[in-house]
Amino acid sequence: MILDEAKIAVIGLGYVGLPLAVEFGKKYPTIGFDINVRRIGELEKGIDSTLEVEPEKLREANKLNFTADAEELRGSNIYIITVPTPIDKYKRPDLSPLEKASNLVGKLLSKGDIVIYESTVYPGATEEVCVPILINQSGLAYINGEDNKKQIDGFYVGYSPERINPGDKKHRVTNIKKVTSGSTPEIADVIDSLYSSIISAGTHKASSIKVAEAAKVIENTQRDINIALVNELALIFNRLGIDTKEVLEAAGSKWNFLPFKPGLVGGHCIGIDPYYLTHKAMEVGYHPEIILAGRRLNDGMGRYVAHEVISLMTRKRISVVDAKILVMGLTFKENCPDLRNTRVIDIVSELNSYQCYVDVFDPWVDPNEAESEYGIRPIHEPVSNQYDAIVLAVAHQQFREIEPETIRQYLKQDGVIYDIKSVLPKELVDGRL
Amino acid sequence: MILDEAKIAVIGLGYVGLPLAVEFGKKYPTIGFDINVRRIGELEKGIDSTLEVEPEKLREANKLNFTADAEELRGSNIYIITVPTPIDKYKRPDLSPLEKASNLVGKLLSKGDIVIYESTVYPGATEEVCVPILINQSGLAYINGEDNKKQIDGFYVGYSPERINPGDKKHRVTNIKKVTSGSTPEIADVIDSLYSSIISAGTHKASSIKVAEAAKVIENTQRDINIALVNELALIFNRLGIDTKEVLEAAGSKWNFLPFKPGLVGGHCIGIDPYYLTHKAMEVGYHPEIILAGRRLNDGMGRYVAHEVISLMTRKRISVVDAKILVMGLTFKENCPDLRNTRVIDIVSELNSYQCYVDVFDPWVDPNEAESEYGIRPIHEPVSNQYDAIVLAVAHQQFREIEPETIRQYLKQDGVIYDIKSVLPKELVDGRL
Repeated sequence: MILDEAKIAVIGLGYVGLPLAVEFGKKYPTIGFDINVRRIGELEKGIDSTLEVEPEKLREANKLNFTADAEELRGSNIYIITVPTPIDKYKRPDLSPLEKASNLVGKLLSKGDIVIYESTVYPGATEEVCVPILINQSGLAYINGEDNKKQIDGFYVGYSPERINPGDKKHRVTNIKKVTSGSTPEIADVIDSLYSSIISAGTHKASSIKVAEAAKVIENTQRDINIALVNELALIFNRLGIDTKEVLEAAGSKWNFLPFKPGLVGGHCIGIDPYYLTHKAMEVGYHPEIILAGRRLNDGMGRYVAHEVISLMTRKRISVVDAKILVMGLTFKENCPDLRNTRVIDIVSELNSYQCYVDVFDPWVDPNEAESEYGIRPIHEPVSNQYDAIVLAVAHQQFREIEPETIRQYLKQDGVIYDIKSVLPKELVDGRL
Repeated sequence: MILDEAKIAVIGLGYVGLPLAVEFGKKYPTIGFDINVRRIGELEKGIDSTLEVEPEKLREANKLNFTADAEELRGSNIYIITVPTPIDKYKRPDLSPLEKASNLVGKLLSKGDIVIYESTVYPGATEEVCVPILINQSGLAYINGEDNKKQIDGFYVGYSPERINPGDKKHRVTNIKKVTSGSTPEIADVIDSLYSSIISAGTHKASSIKVAEAAKVIENTQRDINIALVNELALIFNRLGIDTKEVLEAAGSKWNFLPFKPGLVGGHCIGIDPYYLTHKAMEVGYHPEIILAGRRLNDGMGRYVAHEVISLMTRKRISVVDAKILVMGLTFKENCPDLRNTRVIDIVSELNSYQCYVDVFDPWVDPNEAESEYGIRPIHEPVSNQYDAIVLAVAHQQFREIEPETIRQYLKQDGVIYDIKSVLPKELVDGRL
């Protein structure tokens, strides 16, 4: 395929798909598809509610159109699938969005077309789960391997994992190097050229789809483990009466010490991707020791924080039942509206289980989304002299800019402040991670 | 104390103590003490068998003298203890060298003297284990805390963890930033100035001895966990038929992916320090999940490699019992003669347990040391056409420089090569981590 003839369809217009569709839409005829009709309506008006793409950037993509009607994708020859790959409540990979997207694309495929997956999966998933659906729906053959026999009536597949970091204004889709791969050496080259044409940071062509899948899933696993380690250190040092932040600062004076910080691990990727890898590992009889230990630790931090707060309150003779507690921050990370898989929710639930009244304050959050996702209606603004305890859960810039004294004033006399992200000076808080 | 009056004694002249004594010995009257009489004899002749300090550097330290007689240290006013802190066969901290050194120094102490520990310990060990010995032996009081009451008849203590990286010619004692701490704020300043006077990279003064101890012990714990993770990934990918090196290269194209590699974890620090931290954690009722998972994984890699080799041999119908196997490399890391806690030994023992004959070849190793430490007499040079299998265990420069074909020639026809550190091209080996 010659790139000049590329007609691109991007399936899924979330944090990953939209920025990608915008870049392709500057150079190639591109259709962005999403099943969320409201999202399509907003995008057509130039509004991106994920705040990843500014209105003027949307306008720059003058070859990009949006649709919620799959039939409009027909006639495309490169299908890029960027749907979410979440986990279910048992922490198992939930491939249903990927399967549905594959079903949809399979029905549209013509011979010679390329389907590229960007969603994070376990090694093997693309060819074991998605390709059979494409074959089934399209009635076409899957062209793979290294043999040069021309298979006319088939389609190709590629895998090029997304590396979007929500809210990160420095690392954008075009300046993050991208891994590419394809089902034949020739099509891997085509896919590599396609991405090279929009990504200034360049590409890394992996030797196979499996290698590319594996590379993606370990990136976030590595971050997860490193945060789990500093969380474990925080648990140990807390028992030893040592301030973890001071220790990390001292260790950080070594040239090769890695500056990870303790905290909650939520979001669409770091807290989820490792479960994809461990799922596959279990299938082949390997029980992942360290990866699952990291997950257990990180998944337990919300409860740990809640218990620390309750313990500090108890020692100050504050009655826990019926106490009013303010949780500042609900998003999974600072300075973005992303609520996906936020673990702040664990703090709230645990405090609720002690019959505390919990108010959540987060200026970044869409209250309707918080309510529909988590049944939490964030308050508009905290009122002075109201709370028995405050949990500073997310280090939003707005919270850093509030005077520490103002935050203290939200508290009743002698209330407790617990500062997960060390936003406030150590002397002003009762506890921190 | 004014630094002009400093008379320094360094107790323990190994990888840590000697380079430090040499730097101090350029500026201050310094006595280097070691219980190893042979080591003192060599140093007096200008020979450092650890290869950390070149003869001309030894000569530059013109205020440095060596002794194996503790009485010659009397009259010093700053004692720096740099003895090893190993673990016993149950993986428990073995503080006996530290206790012996404290005993020795305690007998020599005068009021106003400073004792600085550089050995890696768990948080609290200096003040809980060493200080009581110093008090006991010296009959002097321990001056600590923030009160400004002058305690005339006492001694001070500091902790300034070593950050020596054996064999690393780039990161030397003077250009590695150093953490310092002291038992009072004033003495912390003195100790900080003392190290600042020889370390061009500067110092980081920690708020307490405990924080400095904790900072040291987590540095190597972090490396240990990161290597454990890539080892776990190698175990998973091996089962999935995916080449780990290719995956790590692809993931390494992301700006924040950390370039750790799978392998054995041995040596005096990375494989040992975490056990100091976990020991203390257990004392305060915290069972370290992730740190111990990392240790179990890394400690199991030697056996894993041996089993992989045996499995590859078996599949090639090579009889394992009585097979001749060449292990290339015995030191705990490449390009240094350091045999301390090398885990290559686990490969050798495991292969021996299958009644294989194992030859070890390592041009860096002192054969007498290898024999007395491990009962292994390394061979002088491998002979062609001799071995059923080769394990390339350490990535010494010499091994990288041998032609791959020459290495193959050591093998009998159709023998097995297992390449732990990916020294050879992938196509030339039968297996790698």
